[in-house]
Amino acid sequence: MASHIRFIMLNTSHSGNIGAAARAMKTMGLNQLVLVNPKDYPSAEATARASGADDLLHTAAIYTEFTQAIEDCQLVLGLSARLRRVKWPVLDVRQAAELAMSQANNAAFVFGQERTGLSNTEMDRCHYLVHIPSNPDFSSLNVASAIQIMAYELNMAEKAKKTEDIQKGEETASAAQMEGFYEHLEQTLKDIGFIEEHQAKLMRRLRRLFNRSLLNTTELNLLRGILRAAQGKSI
Amino acid sequence: MASHIRFIMLNTSHSGNIGAAARAMKTMGLNQLVLVNPKDYPSAEATARASGADDLLHTAAIYTEFTQAIEDCQLVLGLSARLRRVKWPVLDVRQAAELAMSQANNAAFVFGQERTGLSNTEMDRCHYLVHIPSNPDFSSLNVASAIQIMAYELNMAEKAKKTEDIQKGEETASAAQMEGFYEHLEQTLKDIGFIEEHQAKLMRRLRRLFNRSLLNTTELNLLRGILRAAQGKSI
Repeated sequence: MASHIRFIMLNTSHSGNIGAAARAMKTMGLNQLVLVNPKDYPSAEATARASGADDLLHTAAIYTEFTQAIEDCQLVLGLSARLRRVKWPVLDVRQAAELAMSQANNAAFVFGQERTGLSNTEMDRCHYLVHIPSNPDFSSLNVASAIQIMAYELNMAEKAKKTEDIQKGEETASAAQMEGFYEHLEQTLKDIGFIEEHQAKLMRRLRRLFNRSLLNTTELNLLRGILRAAQGKSI
Repeated sequence: MASHIRFIMLNTSHSGNIGAAARAMKTMGLNQLVLVNPKDYPSAEATARASGADDLLHTAAIYTEFTQAIEDCQLVLGLSARLRRVKWPVLDVRQAAELAMSQANNAAFVFGQERTGLSNTEMDRCHYLVHIPSNPDFSSLNVASAIQIMAYELNMAEKAKKTEDIQKGEETASAAQMEGFYEHLEQTLKDIGFIEEHQAKLMRRLRRLFNRSLLNTTELNLLRGILRAAQGKSI
């Protein structure tokens, strides 16, 4: 659960959208919902559309002023399907998710009213405009759909970060280790008859390929085990 | 517009979800909606929720049998929020979007009934199970939300592909090509005596390693040539 991340809905007209938003957030492991001036809330429609995520509705903070909702936030991101005459720095959804997940500070994602989206005054409170790439001829995303996409990208970013953290525990191979690996690789290519003599261009290509993956030591040992097996040596 | 891609909704109970699905698709530049046995359709609720995307409702094909809807499709992908005991090969949403965008064949994304999702019989018609990474304790995505996420990833993949086509020269290997590579890799590991039977954890580790380097097709062919040599086959 990314408890440092909150979703703020401003002046929402249809309470069904609030319920759908709660459900969208919960499916992606988020639980901090904040409502500013919801029009018709609480409502049975919101609870129905939440469909099992009504715990997020019960714990949702409700404010009358947008500023109250972001008081303790270090990062405020305003969502918009349209790109405006550029006044604010722009991130796409994926970049925004990575940014919010890369830091421990409180981050708020802000969603405007259904018809109008975020006003310029509201955007002025935001550090970034987050753009959802969409059909230029029909960019009218439902607000709960925008929330679903943002929540999905945050979940993907969190997963990527966890994988990274695990791999960090496993140290990246040193340059010397990589050299040892490339020598072993070249020798194996000779032993299995793939090449007969040193081929500089081929080896450069293979270096580029494996360098891109930033091998950790466990992976390096695994690959060297495979090379030994290919050479017909005991593993 | 990716006209080779269709979204198929099976036995949808709530026609509001059909309208929301049409809107979700259109915002992401998709327009081929197919309905199989919708419960209560056409309906005013569907038109209302489509909110300007009712052209997709008017042109939607409607069938009584799932098989009719996929007759002319070379690739069929079934969406599911839960991971089942693995019987079908699994892709996540992002990989599935790349796969569908990398080819010109007709591709169908299939979405099951709201409560039950896809049945095993329906999944048997699919080439891949497409997994939406989500909260393991609450993976109950609304069907139109699942459609929104899938459509969003397809739009992102199409954009990436356009950029790539421009940068081309060396095309990034498709998901299908990578699958072929991993099968070949596993077979080779058996042939050289590195493993005796399928080892899921090992293969996952190798996938992670090679996926990170985003192989292009030239590199992929090079690696497969090496595998053939290791297997002792003529290059």
